[in-house]
Amino acid sequence: MKSRAAVAFAAGEPLQIVEVDVAPPQAGEVLIKVTHSGVCHTDAFTLSGDDPEGVFPAILGHEGAGIVVEVGEGVTSVKPGDHVIPLYTAECGECLFCKSGKTNLCVAVRATQGKGVMPDGTTRFSYQGQPIYHYMGCSTFSEYTVVAEVSLAKIHPEANPEQVCLLGCGVTTGIGAVHNTAKVQPGDSVAVFGLGGIGLAVVQGARQAQAGRIIVVDTNPEKFELAKQFGATDCLNPKDYDQPIQQVIVEMTGWGVDHSFECIGNVNVMRSALECAHRGWGQSVIIGVAGSGQEISTRPFQLVTGRSWKGTAFGGVKGRSQLPGMVEQAMRGEIELEPFVTHTMPLSEINHAFELMHEGKSIRSVVHFED
Amino acid sequence: MKSRAAVAFAAGEPLQIVEVDVAPPQAGEVLIKVTHSGVCHTDAFTLSGDDPEGVFPAILGHEGAGIVVEVGEGVTSVKPGDHVIPLYTAECGECLFCKSGKTNLCVAVRATQGKGVMPDGTTRFSYQGQPIYHYMGCSTFSEYTVVAEVSLAKIHPEANPEQVCLLGCGVTTGIGAVHNTAKVQPGDSVAVFGLGGIGLAVVQGARQAQAGRIIVVDTNPEKFELAKQFGATDCLNPKDYDQPIQQVIVEMTGWGVDHSFECIGNVNVMRSALECAHRGWGQSVIIGVAGSGQEISTRPFQLVTGRSWKGTAFGGVKGRSQLPGMVEQAMRGEIELEPFVTHTMPLSEINHAFELMHEGKSIRSVVHFED
Repeated sequence: MKSRAAVAFAAGEPLQIVEVDVAPPQAGEVLIKVTHSGVCHTDAFTLSGDDPEGVFPAILGHEGAGIVVEVGEGVTSVKPGDHVIPLYTAECGECLFCKSGKTNLCVAVRATQGKGVMPDGTTRFSYQGQPIYHYMGCSTFSEYTVVAEVSLAKIHPEANPEQVCLLGCGVTTGIGAVHNTAKVQPGDSVAVFGLGGIGLAVVQGARQAQAGRIIVVDTNPEKFELAKQFGATDCLNPKDYDQPIQQVIVEMTGWGVDHSFECIGNVNVMRSALECAHRGWGQSVIIGVAGSGQEISTRPFQLVTGRSWKGTAFGGVKGRSQLPGMVEQAMRGEIELEPFVTHTMPLSEINHAFELMHEGKSIRSVVHFED
Repeated sequence: MKSRAAVAFAAGEPLQIVEVDVAPPQAGEVLIKVTHSGVCHTDAFTLSGDDPEGVFPAILGHEGAGIVVEVGEGVTSVKPGDHVIPLYTAECGECLFCKSGKTNLCVAVRATQGKGVMPDGTTRFSYQGQPIYHYMGCSTFSEYTVVAEVSLAKIHPEANPEQVCLLGCGVTTGIGAVHNTAKVQPGDSVAVFGLGGIGLAVVQGARQAQAGRIIVVDTNPEKFELAKQFGATDCLNPKDYDQPIQQVIVEMTGWGVDHSFECIGNVNVMRSALECAHRGWGQSVIIGVAGSGQEISTRPFQLVTGRSWKGTAFGGVKGRSQLPGMVEQAMRGEIELEPFVTHTMPLSEINHAFELMHEGKSIRSVVHFED
């Protein structure tokens, strides 16, 4: 079938809106009609060419919501008409990782997903007879896309897709990092580095967890108002200080914060985040994705004196079992999604969404497929 | 009073056995007669001049056992005749850290201890009228030494001091790291980097915890026999492999080990230890002390895919409340100390103990104060 899609033909070039061909879903696969998709920094990162796993031409997009159109052989967990969110972190329930009870990092489709193909090693997209690669197992910048059954969360049909699409990546990652990775407890102090969609979601998660002090750090003070609305108690712009920001935080808290979160992907900020963690028990969680080949570093003394350094992917959330509940939390207002959606636009204007992101003018732009 | 002591007059020079003057214990302090002291790598590290906190002249030694001789004003928890182990990690029970229940890193005497003085800012040692500094709050290379009351664990009087002195540092650190920091569970896989006293203690702790596979790594294969005796299942010499040792371990285990421990103080090995940890949940614990200014590094991807990087000091053990129990475990044979003591010698031969350590010929040398 034909589908409108924004195709990344080459790294560093704007997306092109074209009509691609989509092959039918094979065994264990599902064809969905995407209704909405957020535009995330990770899409921009891959488009820039800095992502070592990036392959082109590809259809990007991994933060979407849609409706099942057709299911391949053997698919039993969803049927046409079901409302779904595609998952870049699958949940097969069968692999060593799913069965461990310790992580959400399912390996069912990991190897092929990283290469931009479906589990059988081929793509379902083509343009003028040439294959177009998938992206993060989702490719939500196409009106019709094919994903693995294990990469689909079935959600409440009355959820607002323009908002809950954000639970496909950024918001879930931030909130999940607070609850699943850091396990923030009532009264704990928290520092959040970077107030993009993920950082703001961390602030929201910290408030849900009844954190005490919530310190946010960003070089763009325009982000502070929304952060305060979500629960931030202290807003710091590193440009206002001569000392390293970790030192500022340690001094203002006494010994540092119980939990810190890096939500940018900057390895220097990752170090600051670790080093502002409380002596004895503070922990720092890396959420941001750093550029290829970049490394984090610190003195081992920081760890020997009780800090721990962790990371999280998709906030430790198991998509198929936990995301439906988070969608319902959003429907009840326990997760606020509306303030994240600062811009909406049709697919034809998707390149503008990337511009807004690079200019720091948007939290999230959501594209839709209505004309 | 007069006391025989091995004094480090300057960095890089052999210790000199001289008779020093020891002032009486002040309020909150205790004079003890040291009967035995292990010689640990940390003593050698400070003596080398690489320790940024090292001050000279000083009386080193921090792994001792002794008997209380005299107590200063207000001391209530020990009395003359009590058998004790001096603690370089105090336990006051009153500070933020002691009260947290999350760490053993008491700060009661930390600031002055790091400067080589007692809590009132002065030293109790002098030689020819010149002050001699304390070391790690212990200075067990002196027959008589003064320590803070909060830095003394009272132990069973029938424990063998030649062996239980090792619970003052290395053995407790290794065993504690397994139980308190990593919390190894039955069946878990473990990798131990470096088979000095601490590494061998980690192996013992892992066996106590009923770990499944216990992989040990050392460039000196002579260490493997004792490691096997303590429970090691696989012995690896990195010199036997062309690939990085973390890759060898990941391949032999499938996805890496549940827990790894760095027991050397080498920042490159710390990286290997982290990177051989299991995707999704593996954790790596830094125990070794790195040289001044050295840094650890890795790709943040290692953490984002579920590994965590931790550290431990004194194995997370709270000395006054937990060490007496460990001494009793040793008396019941549940902790084997005898194999660690490969050499014993009088204080006069202490420089030979450092030579044996540097040559890799000893696990632990224990000096005693009998003539």
